[in-house]
Amino acid sequence: MVNDMRKRRIVIIGGGTGLPVILRVLRKHYLDITAVITVGDDGGSSGKIRKQIDVIPPGDIRNALSALSESESSIARVFQYRFQNEGELKGHVVGNLLLAALADMHGDALEAIADLSNILNVKGVVLPATTIPLQLQAKMTDGSVVVGESNIPKVRKPIEQLEIVPDDARASQRVVDAIKEADLIAFGPGSLYTSILPNLLVHDIAQAVISSKAQKVYVCNILTQLGETEGFSDADHVRILHEHVGEKFIDHVLVNEKTVAPALIFPEGVTQVDSNIKGMEDQEVAPIFDDYLDTSDGFVRHDAERVVERLIALIDKSRHS
Amino acid sequence: MVNDMRKRRIVIIGGGTGLPVILRVLRKHYLDITAVITVGDDGGSSGKIRKQIDVIPPGDIRNALSALSESESSIARVFQYRFQNEGELKGHVVGNLLLAALADMHGDALEAIADLSNILNVKGVVLPATTIPLQLQAKMTDGSVVVGESNIPKVRKPIEQLEIVPDDARASQRVVDAIKEADLIAFGPGSLYTSILPNLLVHDIAQAVISSKAQKVYVCNILTQLGETEGFSDADHVRILHEHVGEKFIDHVLVNEKTVAPALIFPEGVTQVDSNIKGMEDQEVAPIFDDYLDTSDGFVRHDAERVVERLIALIDKSRHS
Repeated sequence: MVNDMRKRRIVIIGGGTGLPVILRVLRKHYLDITAVITVGDDGGSSGKIRKQIDVIPPGDIRNALSALSESESSIARVFQYRFQNEGELKGHVVGNLLLAALADMHGDALEAIADLSNILNVKGVVLPATTIPLQLQAKMTDGSVVVGESNIPKVRKPIEQLEIVPDDARASQRVVDAIKEADLIAFGPGSLYTSILPNLLVHDIAQAVISSKAQKVYVCNILTQLGETEGFSDADHVRILHEHVGEKFIDHVLVNEKTVAPALIFPEGVTQVDSNIKGMEDQEVAPIFDDYLDTSDGFVRHDAERVVERLIALIDKSRHS
Repeated sequence: MVNDMRKRRIVIIGGGTGLPVILRVLRKHYLDITAVITVGDDGGSSGKIRKQIDVIPPGDIRNALSALSESESSIARVFQYRFQNEGELKGHVVGNLLLAALADMHGDALEAIADLSNILNVKGVVLPATTIPLQLQAKMTDGSVVVGESNIPKVRKPIEQLEIVPDDARASQRVVDAIKEADLIAFGPGSLYTSILPNLLVHDIAQAVISSKAQKVYVCNILTQLGETEGFSDADHVRILHEHVGEKFIDHVLVNEKTVAPALIFPEGVTQVDSNIKGMEDQEVAPIFDDYLDTSDGFVRHDAERVVERLIALIDKSRHS
């Protein structure tokens, strides 16, 4: 009985702005959380920083730390402050600058994240997929190659294969250990090619995921993304993940079944992700349909409460089986 | 007897890099410390920040906070981290950016400083002379006017009178209260025109100093400064302070009597400050001669231990009189 009270271990893998929405809710539950964050971002403030300093892009890590922060202090708030005024500081975010400065001071990104986790009273652990800043490159179906995460969706061509540079980047040992010890591994929500796949292209991570006995759940996007997943069904999203890893590994897929109001679907070309049940069956994944839609702020997002409820139900199920 | 155990209150007024050296030692004593910091700086990282954001220049305040910090955490160290790499961040200091961001977030520089004081576990209180960013302007003896703290010494002309813009800037109430309640008020060490005088040109501060019953001590510079105090004796330094305030207010002057090795006096034109005992007597100030010289790092600095020893002796003397 005592053993059954231990915190269940969830590893959630992704990046971008979708993941923090889920983390903010996960934090409120009795769980041992590890967020594994992609380091391929080269746009915005992160992109500017990594051009100047040889550091992993801080933005996605900052957002994950902020989402898991249990502090309501000024420092936790200023961590997300973005300089607005004209000039060289414009667009930079305080937390990004702190992360870059600490990483440079320690010569170690993991130590920098640990410092910030202390300051922000972070629940759980935030880890970069690797401590090497990655460059993404995409081979398109027409044979062309596009380099740089921020450039890939811009060309709006179908992607044949995503690659990371360097392709032999190693995962942090702590990432591998967390995956090995997980009770549940969740992927996303996030951009398929630019937030989720880059993590799985790190060889150690893919291997750890494949050999882990944990349930693996993919939180499928609600809408398609221009230049990334145009016209994709849920099964297409899963197929891309399986193809890049070279093996079937996903057990469950959270699929939104609620129709999105057309007015909320923009820009032009974006559509709601269709469900292809046959395609899912072929890949031996079990869809978990539900109303995962939250449009309360006028944007299409995942209903984090519902997603987390489903994730926890999966953990509970595996516990009692 | 119980009353006699209360912490003696010292207010130390200045700016620049001289003051923090003293603050670092003051911090170790059983004292209630208030550091009042000038806000006229327009050079370096501070100057760049105030060009972009309407905020008091953070550099001198940052150094005072750091000097009074009792924290040995990474955040206290990264607070003084200066971006070195090429690019737009080069030369910016993390603490300056934090101060600017917090001040903008709160719309209040004092609250920003209070936040940082908490984070850094600061002993005592650091206050800007005013919360309005000041511009300094100097009327030269040849009738010309030079605007901007960083420009004033560059022209290397004798200064007739220093002014602040706006000339009706008000002191923070907390500064006035601290001066009123002080047992000792110390000025400097620091640049006479650009670190000490700007504080005294704030009308409320000058009035509070004049009406305070506390002992007032000026820590005189050891060397002259190009374009500021060339050829000045100790009495000349005091005269400039008295002339600008319009009244004699200094009781004691700490005057270094140790000869500085010529090799340490640079650049050309700088000399050791001579003592003019007659000039001091005429202004009714009592010099306290001692060896205040510290050249351990190859630069001419005040021996902070000795200065603090003398300041505390003055407080003790006033306590028992």
